[in-house]
Amino acid sequence: MNDQNIYDDEQFFEGYRKLRNNPLSANEIVEKPALFSLCPDFNGKTVLDLGCGFGENCQEFARLGAKQVVGLDISKKMIEVASNENLYSNVNYLNMSMSDLSSFEGKFDVVISSLAVHYIKDFDKLLFEIHNLLEDDGLFIFSQEHPLTTALLSNNYWSRDANGNITHYNLSGYSLEGERRINWLVDNVIKYHRTFSSIINILVNQRFIIEKVLEPIPDQNIMSKESSYLKYNHKPDFLFIRLRKGSL
Amino acid sequence: MNDQNIYDDEQFFEGYRKLRNNPLSANEIVEKPALFSLCPDFNGKTVLDLGCGFGENCQEFARLGAKQVVGLDISKKMIEVASNENLYSNVNYLNMSMSDLSSFEGKFDVVISSLAVHYIKDFDKLLFEIHNLLEDDGLFIFSQEHPLTTALLSNNYWSRDANGNITHYNLSGYSLEGERRINWLVDNVIKYHRTFSSIINILVNQRFIIEKVLEPIPDQNIMSKESSYLKYNHKPDFLFIRLRKGSL
Repeated sequence: MNDQNIYDDEQFFEGYRKLRNNPLSANEIVEKPALFSLCPDFNGKTVLDLGCGFGENCQEFARLGAKQVVGLDISKKMIEVASNENLYSNVNYLNMSMSDLSSFEGKFDVVISSLAVHYIKDFDKLLFEIHNLLEDDGLFIFSQEHPLTTALLSNNYWSRDANGNITHYNLSGYSLEGERRINWLVDNVIKYHRTFSSIINILVNQRFIIEKVLEPIPDQNIMSKESSYLKYNHKPDFLFIRLRKGSL
Repeated sequence: MNDQNIYDDEQFFEGYRKLRNNPLSANEIVEKPALFSLCPDFNGKTVLDLGCGFGENCQEFARLGAKQVVGLDISKKMIEVASNENLYSNVNYLNMSMSDLSSFEGKFDVVISSLAVHYIKDFDKLLFEIHNLLEDDGLFIFSQEHPLTTALLSNNYWSRDANGNITHYNLSGYSLEGERRINWLVDNVIKYHRTFSSIINILVNQRFIIEKVLEPIPDQNIMSKESSYLKYNHKPDFLFIRLRKGSL
């Protein structure tokens, strides 16, 4: 079963690169700080980054003391950029999909995945394979698009009043799990919607111990200065979960 | 700290009684089956029901073999009805708030709470006290109004198209936790909104092990016959969690 490799689409790749270069993007202001707040002390740790993209996080894990970092990404273009721009001693990049880790060898203290698992159809299989790749007591830390975002059946996200201020989020399809094809930089980007309860139950069934869940938004200080961020009072963009490998 | 006792309001009580007598209510079609699907074999078990209301569930736990059942409710009127209509051997009702269980004596195999904890301001304290009341390896099973319901900042729940069909749920205030005053049967019913992540983190911090989470909706067969239920495709009404007492 192959998940979509949209990041190797020329138009998508260029759009994405531009987006990620914006220092005020939700990625920079919300996603990265939340991800690193869940991370352990990296000193001497082995780390696997699933969907490593341009490799900025891999480089940072190494800088923070990780003994060995492996970054995987389905996109050849991404891995090319990572290898050129974010190489660091003890960091290796592999062009490989995370949807079949069964053939992947190795054991890691920490597995991390930033904003990638919502592209994976078989979440249960992914979790089973991550569990196998973790050392005893190892950590799996991931972020994904929030289920309230993956849910939508249309691209009509927000409702506004007569002055153009956002009044609420147009939530549709939350209880209808499965594939979504959306327009994001290009048409037909494929994602998979799972409810909060499905996500938690899959983690529990795969014997992970839930340590912490986050649904971060920009802090009220930033939001008060930038009214376009007030929408986050209605809906967060990201879901984060930190898990520990439990034994049988 | 006292939580609101709205169920002893005359107008609320009569409205609520009528609502619960409807055999096609979401309580009957969705909430009860989901709650019982999470329950263990009651044979020989001791059970505490927090916010037992009219006591139908207490009676059912006893009928299913529970050795002893205690039902607590903050509402004197509710406990009067329970004592008159749903008494059963080994079932006892107490008119008492669940917001201070620290003085309550006893140990139980199972603690259950149906649609009540969203009225409790200090969820952390409640969970601490429930943990103390459970036998080793005991279960806490609860349902509550779904966080997508408790979130709302207005009574404007649904958007409709020109034909009156629901197009989406008007989600507001999900990230803004705290008190909500709503109109439900009467004005100023006080509830507390907590996000999904807050709920999970409080449970984890109080050393509960999460076994299962449910966000049930009516089955597609029922929904296809009754178009007013199609709204549940956009948003579930209830959240259920089954927890096991973990050790220190």
